[in-house]
Amino acid sequence: MIKTDQEYIQRCFELALKAKGEVSPNPLVGSVIVEEGKIISEGYHKKSGTDHAELDAIKNAKASIEGATLYCNLEPCCHTNKKTAPCAQRIIKEKIKKVIISNLDPNPQVAGQGVKLLESAGIEVTHGVLKEEGEKLNEIFFHHILKKTPFIHLKIAQTLDGFTATESGESKWITGSDSRKNVHMQREFYDGILIGANTARLDNPTLTVRIGDDEKPIKRFILSTTGELPDSLNLFNDKFKDYTYLVLPEGTKTNINVNTIYSPATHTGEIDLNILCSTLYKDHQVTSIFIEGGANIHSKFIKEKLYNRVSFYIAPKIFGEGNKSISNIGVSKISEAIELHKTTHKQFGEDSFISGLRQK
Amino acid sequence: MIKTDQEYIQRCFELALKAKGEVSPNPLVGSVIVEEGKIISEGYHKKSGTDHAELDAIKNAKASIEGATLYCNLEPCCHTNKKTAPCAQRIIKEKIKKVIISNLDPNPQVAGQGVKLLESAGIEVTHGVLKEEGEKLNEIFFHHILKKTPFIHLKIAQTLDGFTATESGESKWITGSDSRKNVHMQREFYDGILIGANTARLDNPTLTVRIGDDEKPIKRFILSTTGELPDSLNLFNDKFKDYTYLVLPEGTKTNINVNTIYSPATHTGEIDLNILCSTLYKDHQVTSIFIEGGANIHSKFIKEKLYNRVSFYIAPKIFGEGNKSISNIGVSKISEAIELHKTTHKQFGEDSFISGLRQK
Repeated sequence: MIKTDQEYIQRCFELALKAKGEVSPNPLVGSVIVEEGKIISEGYHKKSGTDHAELDAIKNAKASIEGATLYCNLEPCCHTNKKTAPCAQRIIKEKIKKVIISNLDPNPQVAGQGVKLLESAGIEVTHGVLKEEGEKLNEIFFHHILKKTPFIHLKIAQTLDGFTATESGESKWITGSDSRKNVHMQREFYDGILIGANTARLDNPTLTVRIGDDEKPIKRFILSTTGELPDSLNLFNDKFKDYTYLVLPEGTKTNINVNTIYSPATHTGEIDLNILCSTLYKDHQVTSIFIEGGANIHSKFIKEKLYNRVSFYIAPKIFGEGNKSISNIGVSKISEAIELHKTTHKQFGEDSFISGLRQK
Repeated sequence: MIKTDQEYIQRCFELALKAKGEVSPNPLVGSVIVEEGKIISEGYHKKSGTDHAELDAIKNAKASIEGATLYCNLEPCCHTNKKTAPCAQRIIKEKIKKVIISNLDPNPQVAGQGVKLLESAGIEVTHGVLKEEGEKLNEIFFHHILKKTPFIHLKIAQTLDGFTATESGESKWITGSDSRKNVHMQREFYDGILIGANTARLDNPTLTVRIGDDEKPIKRFILSTTGELPDSLNLFNDKFKDYTYLVLPEGTKTNINVNTIYSPATHTGEIDLNILCSTLYKDHQVTSIFIEGGANIHSKFIKEKLYNRVSFYIAPKIFGEGNKSISNIGVSKISEAIELHKTTHKQFGEDSFISGLRQK
């Protein structure tokens, strides 16, 4: 049965996701080559510095691909200042007849020039197939490549009435196991996780990516104004402690034996988050950050407009009182409220999941 | 195409819902009569004192129903101390061959005796088809007929972080129009709406059922400890003001010219909610109450365990601070939290909807 363009692009997304967590700072890209309604080859980008998806698909082909249609969720590249050969030229050389794309590459070095090059060689090009889904899949890449700052995702797990812990600080567990599994799936998209010192102290988390029996590290950033934290925390002692970074205002001292990032402070003595994010991007190759609380950390990033996506995992529980998920963000009128857009609504067990992007 | 028992029972639910808001204190019941895989007659219960659904379906039949199968979402009645003739006897008389039911009637006057009567006459009876859906449809009836108290539904419209208004009291509108439409659909199931004096004062609501161009009144109860409220409120002046009841502790005075219910107070001077609910049930034929805030009212009903269902309409907005949806309910450990069960998750526009029952 011949599939639609949407279905082939959907297959590209699936292939792309095989390398989830492996491709940063690159995008997630998959490609399929179709001849007479049949997929004759598939490929995807596996890691920065390795073949792009289109090239992988071309190389995987067992027979001639002349005259075939190539699907790819991102525009083929045409720039030569990188480790791999430009894909557009290779597609032309292989005499592909049609190229069907989800998203144009926002990278200023590509930005439609890949399409132009293909078209000038007589190849029929369509783009915009499942455009929104493609943008969501690569929202991290699309943000960082243009803005040169990390894509920031605030994650909150709370009760219906907005509490992340009881007044006594008890937080394990509010949400159910399906929600918590999904958190790990989300973490895998990110270069780093960031939390505040209070959350580190109260929850003593490990902040790794645990999927099935597999445990993978990602960079773990702890923001502290004082540098005073118990040196017994998991983050300072587990087998992934090289992935832990204590972020302190310049001039602060700490006795903890862990990677330290000294970052300029604002006039109130707190870490300047704009500068920090730039530093993490430039000096630590962090194109994306998953922020897991607590309330003050979330509020500070919101106030500085340093967030791109916010996700709430909401358990069907009510506390009435406790530790709030978000503290003051300077909203006094409804018109000033943070309003998420392009929201996604899911259900994990008995929990609700709501995620949305910052209004531009 | 011959339908399944589930599909015929689903049709009974649809028919039953035609009388939504009209049947209290009775249940919502629909019935279809099927012969050779075809529905040959349909009926539903329209109002207390009128024909039951089965009888309505029997009367609507244009041809003989001898040997047919009758579907009904509630067990046919067999008691004679009411205005209408018992349905079980009539079904036997009509020589129906099979009866398929969703729920047994919890009414102690029926409770399986309808089924027994049918079976003793040689009719094949099946019950329990779409049992949970049937129980949900008639959750009000099933509660009140057994407990002799109103079924109580707490409704909250809030931000993601649990606020029903900004700190300045602004609450119009947090949720979107689809959520607000659904609230009116919900209200229609109830005999009465109840709010606190603060909500009456701040929001000046009308609390009617508005669906399309239609506006219908239901009883509106305002709880006040002092009796001091602006007499200009909509509830005291609109065309449905006869449906408004100001509920005051015994001995309190008020100058407002409206129906008043004086109810015994607790030692703290507040209205005793257990007594009030009994009074509303016995003296005011209120089998169900929809409670629309604010936080203190919700918390008081929760603390007294006077609630059966809680529904949250959650807009993808964040305030950081404001008026909370629920105040202290005496929870200090996660194990003490209110936990809803049999949750329903829906999406209304960009809002999430989560509703669940009280844990037994």
